[in-house]
Amino acid sequence: MKIALDAMGGDFAPATIVAGAIQAVKEFKDIEITLVGKNEEIEKELLKFKPVPRSISILHASEVIEMHEPAAASVRRKKDSSIVKAIGLLENKTCDAFVSAGNTGAVVCAATLNLGLLPGIERPGIAILIPTLKGVSLMIDVGANIDPKPDHLFQYAVMANVYFQNVLNKMNPSVGLLNIGEEETKGTDFVKETHKLLSEKILNFIGNVEGKDIFSGNCDCVICDGFVGNIALKVSESLAETLSEFLKQELTRNIFGKIGILLLRASLIRFKKKIDYSEYGGAPLLGVDGIVIICHGRSNVKAIKNAIGAAKKEVERNINIQIIEEIKRI
Amino acid sequence: MKIALDAMGGDFAPATIVAGAIQAVKEFKDIEITLVGKNEEIEKELLKFKPVPRSISILHASEVIEMHEPAAASVRRKKDSSIVKAIGLLENKTCDAFVSAGNTGAVVCAATLNLGLLPGIERPGIAILIPTLKGVSLMIDVGANIDPKPDHLFQYAVMANVYFQNVLNKMNPSVGLLNIGEEETKGTDFVKETHKLLSEKILNFIGNVEGKDIFSGNCDCVICDGFVGNIALKVSESLAETLSEFLKQELTRNIFGKIGILLLRASLIRFKKKIDYSEYGGAPLLGVDGIVIICHGRSNVKAIKNAIGAAKKEVERNINIQIIEEIKRI
Repeated sequence: MKIALDAMGGDFAPATIVAGAIQAVKEFKDIEITLVGKNEEIEKELLKFKPVPRSISILHASEVIEMHEPAAASVRRKKDSSIVKAIGLLENKTCDAFVSAGNTGAVVCAATLNLGLLPGIERPGIAILIPTLKGVSLMIDVGANIDPKPDHLFQYAVMANVYFQNVLNKMNPSVGLLNIGEEETKGTDFVKETHKLLSEKILNFIGNVEGKDIFSGNCDCVICDGFVGNIALKVSESLAETLSEFLKQELTRNIFGKIGILLLRASLIRFKKKIDYSEYGGAPLLGVDGIVIICHGRSNVKAIKNAIGAAKKEVERNINIQIIEEIKRI
Repeated sequence: MKIALDAMGGDFAPATIVAGAIQAVKEFKDIEITLVGKNEEIEKELLKFKPVPRSISILHASEVIEMHEPAAASVRRKKDSSIVKAIGLLENKTCDAFVSAGNTGAVVCAATLNLGLLPGIERPGIAILIPTLKGVSLMIDVGANIDPKPDHLFQYAVMANVYFQNVLNKMNPSVGLLNIGEEETKGTDFVKETHKLLSEKILNFIGNVEGKDIFSGNCDCVICDGFVGNIALKVSESLAETLSEFLKQELTRNIFGKIGILLLRASLIRFKKKIDYSEYGGAPLLGVDGIVIICHGRSNVKAIKNAIGAAKKEVERNINIQIIEEIKRI
């Protein structure tokens, strides 16, 4: 199995990306990784890991799409960027999957334009995994499609279902529609129409779920438009940081707090691990004709390694074939 | 100053509401409270606080609008409900403000229909106060208007500005538009149009802000549509609870954790207080021709008392006159 990795994407590229690749080939024995990006910069990083494992190679790309460049225009213009060239490796079947912590919009755009969409899917969606009190939930879409039609959300529900069953190994996961109330009369016309469609076509649809249900774990697959999903995701990240900061401020105000923290060190580390996004292996871009995983721009070494692991699992489980069959069936 | 209080609204009504009223008249010397609801039930609760302060009176209302009843229909049908009768007290100027922890939709609907809107305001908005790393922020709207026009968001920005200056005592608060990216090219057509309008008309507009900016405190007034705002609010409440639960689970797993918690008791209580919604005194419904404060359904005694305090402050600061003048000026 060959995985293309965007060596230039993310806030700490290429150092973190290269280190993540090295960790991944050590942990997952049966994969090869192609680092796509500026030859010289990648080689400089690889020097730190001599001898470089033979399962790691480089594909030179002279350009970089920066984090805040407009997606569509930069994909059209920068043909020799790491993102566009890596997607090319999937297009010509040289690689089986692509992992990037770079410009999310550009990854979505390049994948959609150059790989195309799966039959029966009209828009791609970004899915994220969320730690909850009852295990992991999945939310789709968190930003690929900010002005969707009800049909697109129906397709997200089908893909979420397949992903949950095949990658997260839970049969008949519950599927809910994110809304401002549980009653089917609630919400905008768009949400009401979507509710009707999901009720008719998705067997394990449990109806509307509210913002409070995302982290309670009351719903396995939370379906929403990309605008709302993106806001919910970023609010959550920010709140988790703010609460940690508040807690730290309070805990370090006196000597009791400082001793207490020493005693609690192991617990606090476990707590941090539980809510740490880097444990959860990146966000699959579902609906494109290829396996693509999008990582947080701030990804650390472990996050990159886990994202590569997630890509590997998707390839092994043949996730896209399953999606095509399920869409056909419904 | 006379404040009408919905004695039947909220998960713990009337007990918690009556207790909150008693606390409020003790703390705020110059107010009178009219408890609106079922005479018999209220009197039974008041028995617990003998002698009942003379500044507390009862207005009997034989009906209750339950939490999950459809708003408009129940306001039309239940003319003798606590919500409709309390709004009547504002309408005929018997009371200066109304506080309710009952059915939010019904409060918004009764206030809009029976009090009317301020000149220049086309839709009411619910504003909430948010604890951040840099003090308190305000977010509007969190659910009164789920399908707004750009003009409505402009009016929210004006009202948020006035509220922040007059009630939260900060001159020229920053105003931001909630979006999925900072660039003005980001977001749906609706958000882009709103961005243009705010740029032209709101002096202290700082542009788009993202989900992550809500709790960082980078923006004083966060403007959004009621659908997105409601989801963001409920996600936040739920995440805060989930994180506390995770932390508790981890901390109580062994003897070190348990000793640690004893040492940290005071810190943890201060932490809880900082993020506790009941400290922040309810959410003002801005734009209606009257002072109306909406409380969380789960409000405890302190939350009700603080909401009454917030209502008092709004009346003292003549907030609606200020809004009318500011709208006229722009």
